[in-house]
Amino acid sequence: MRVLSTELKDHIGENVHLEGWLHKKRLLGGLTFINLRDRRGITQAVIKDKQEVDKLRGLHTGTVLTIEGQAKEEPRAPGGVELHDVKLEVMVPVSSEPLIEIDKPLSHKPDNLDTLFEYRSIGLRNLNESKVFLVRSILLRLLREFLYDHDFVEINSPKLVGNAAEGGAEVFKLDYFGKSASLAQSPQLYKQVMVGVFERVFEIGPAFRAEPSATTRHVSEVTMLDIEMAFIKDHDEVLSMIQELLYFVITKAWKEHADLLNELKAPEPVLKPQFPRYSMSRIHELYGKANNVDTSSEIDLTPDEERWICEYAKEHDGCEAVFATDLPRSKMKFYHMAKDEATVYSADLLFRGLELATCPQREHRYDTLVSQMQAAGIKADDPAYMFYSQAFKYGLPPHGGCGFGVDRLVEKVIGLGNIKEAILFPRDINRLTP
Amino acid sequence: MRVLSTELKDHIGENVHLEGWLHKKRLLGGLTFINLRDRRGITQAVIKDKQEVDKLRGLHTGTVLTIEGQAKEEPRAPGGVELHDVKLEVMVPVSSEPLIEIDKPLSHKPDNLDTLFEYRSIGLRNLNESKVFLVRSILLRLLREFLYDHDFVEINSPKLVGNAAEGGAEVFKLDYFGKSASLAQSPQLYKQVMVGVFERVFEIGPAFRAEPSATTRHVSEVTMLDIEMAFIKDHDEVLSMIQELLYFVITKAWKEHADLLNELKAPEPVLKPQFPRYSMSRIHELYGKANNVDTSSEIDLTPDEERWICEYAKEHDGCEAVFATDLPRSKMKFYHMAKDEATVYSADLLFRGLELATCPQREHRYDTLVSQMQAAGIKADDPAYMFYSQAFKYGLPPHGGCGFGVDRLVEKVIGLGNIKEAILFPRDINRLTP
Repeated sequence: MRVLSTELKDHIGENVHLEGWLHKKRLLGGLTFINLRDRRGITQAVIKDKQEVDKLRGLHTGTVLTIEGQAKEEPRAPGGVELHDVKLEVMVPVSSEPLIEIDKPLSHKPDNLDTLFEYRSIGLRNLNESKVFLVRSILLRLLREFLYDHDFVEINSPKLVGNAAEGGAEVFKLDYFGKSASLAQSPQLYKQVMVGVFERVFEIGPAFRAEPSATTRHVSEVTMLDIEMAFIKDHDEVLSMIQELLYFVITKAWKEHADLLNELKAPEPVLKPQFPRYSMSRIHELYGKANNVDTSSEIDLTPDEERWICEYAKEHDGCEAVFATDLPRSKMKFYHMAKDEATVYSADLLFRGLELATCPQREHRYDTLVSQMQAAGIKADDPAYMFYSQAFKYGLPPHGGCGFGVDRLVEKVIGLGNIKEAILFPRDINRLTP
Repeated sequence: MRVLSTELKDHIGENVHLEGWLHKKRLLGGLTFINLRDRRGITQAVIKDKQEVDKLRGLHTGTVLTIEGQAKEEPRAPGGVELHDVKLEVMVPVSSEPLIEIDKPLSHKPDNLDTLFEYRSIGLRNLNESKVFLVRSILLRLLREFLYDHDFVEINSPKLVGNAAEGGAEVFKLDYFGKSASLAQSPQLYKQVMVGVFERVFEIGPAFRAEPSATTRHVSEVTMLDIEMAFIKDHDEVLSMIQELLYFVITKAWKEHADLLNELKAPEPVLKPQFPRYSMSRIHELYGKANNVDTSSEIDLTPDEERWICEYAKEHDGCEAVFATDLPRSKMKFYHMAKDEATVYSADLLFRGLELATCPQREHRYDTLVSQMQAAGIKADDPAYMFYSQAFKYGLPPHGGCGFGVDRLVEKVIGLGNIKEAILFPRDINRLTP
């Protein structure tokens, strides 16, 4: 029976069988020490027997091994246990020198992402690199846990679409059996239609943006959490749900996985259940006063304003998550609901200086929506949009939601410097492989 | 405070506030009865007051309402409760006649799927149509529950890829900032690389197949569950895990949601924890004898053989799930492991007459893999495949897994006749909208 590294402490004094990868080999005082990596972590083993040591001659990191030995308490070893009287067997030999070192704190320099992705499949075997994706898996699980508990139904909307004019960003086009198709930028139209069925729906899936940007915050394929909820009393109810979601996920991740997050040096979150809300014009005003500049004519918050307001809120409100509310009409899309001449019922959720989600109320009144579609150059009876406008014609209640960037959430929870570090195999304007 | 239809039974004798859609309106003995639909189901309300009845004049199914009334026990009403002394308010009026009826058992005829998808956003408001997607959401949740409990880490692999030669089916091509990209047919290469990091990984996501087939079992965009597990002793260990997964998911779905499944007339499952296993040649033999034909020269099981062997196993083994093992080498892909001259370590999981998953062991030995890649026309040092071959060069243990069709699972658990009925907005050679 295979024993995993973390189970070893329950087998002190016993002979155990382990399987894993040779992670490190070193000679110390005439003894050979090896670190064996398995899916849970590292086991240290001491090999005295020359015959056993010889089995590893010429073999490198990555060699797949089974080892048998006696588990002994040893405070200096990982997990407080060390393997003695070791017999080993090589399952898969690795005879090539490693391309990169994976037993260091990180297998890449944060400012050299090209190396990171060039050797991605090996570099991830570094324990600190891989922990990023354990955290990611945990966050995905917690997001769904919250949503299931709040009556949201999980949906899968199509990624190959004939209607891709919903967003501002550029779309990828392709030939679809002789028709022109696009890759979905978001499940926007589909999730809205589905609140007419289930009231509350969500989807976690890929979204595609053909934006030729090369920044620390953009990639051309992202993982989005899309949420939509109906029968809201007002826009505030949408923001309350999203703030509760983020608070739940981060708080529970830290409650259950503090060790893992600390190993990654993730900054401890400073959050309150109620996130502070500042209107966009108020942010311009506060930022302008503090920095002696005038940003009031900007349509968006500048990246520096996003950083600044999160710092400001952390200090003044004891919370690093902020809603920037009352977004300007110049940013309005046809499916948003206008609040007045100048603003939209929409807010950006900012966390640690980065926008995680935009959270608007939707226009649910058929006639108003049709006008707004027309103004955006879309006919309500266009065959590709008919299913959408029909849902409104036959009754959709007030609703709202958000598109929530999962990659950005992972990045900011851990405190990484670039969205790409939170994605296994990121895609940008220069990178289509690995 | 809004009360939901299913909560009404806890409020007998109280005045309650409900919100939902007008689902049906009828006159009976001088009284007006309305059915109000919300995300949990239907509430019946009796309206006597002419002033209240008048508010609904000219309004149709889909009209969004709030209603206040007194909850009274009434065995003939849905849920055993009826609303009396009703005051109502129209939130969103619907003044158009319905396009299709949604208060019938089904909004479509099973043999007329075009109507189904033409009016999809409205048709799904039929309770029986929507329940299919409640079951789907439940199955997705149970699949993940099992996998998390068995130490599988959730990953997100890219859908825009530069390497798409892994499968037999055709791929969708597109321009990616001047490069030629494909839509991923599966996460095959990525999940294999990731077992070098986490040993056990899974992903649920879209996969794209540009197959110009028009059958009841093919669509061009599917939702796949991809599983991969390492440190297996043998191929059998892969099959055991997948059989345990399917048994868990179906058994638990029926344990916790029998009402919902019965409402959909889903056939009760006939399963055993150990699924019977028949080699492909044995299936040809049994089928040939029973039907007096010779299929031994077929590369695949014929659709009729797939149906027949599941019926046979149900009768002889008390289990409608079967593994067809020892698939022929003519079906082998470069990443499969050959068993002997004639067969591959691979098996098809069949359930109720349909292939749900193919479950091979992978070739993990670097040199053998490189030869198999070459034979398939792929160079191991091709920049698009380098990350893949590197993972083997630097040590991958024996591993295997499967691509599991989520849509097909939903179809067969409920007993639908076509995969498209299990997909919200399916894509096939003729359909890119809605």
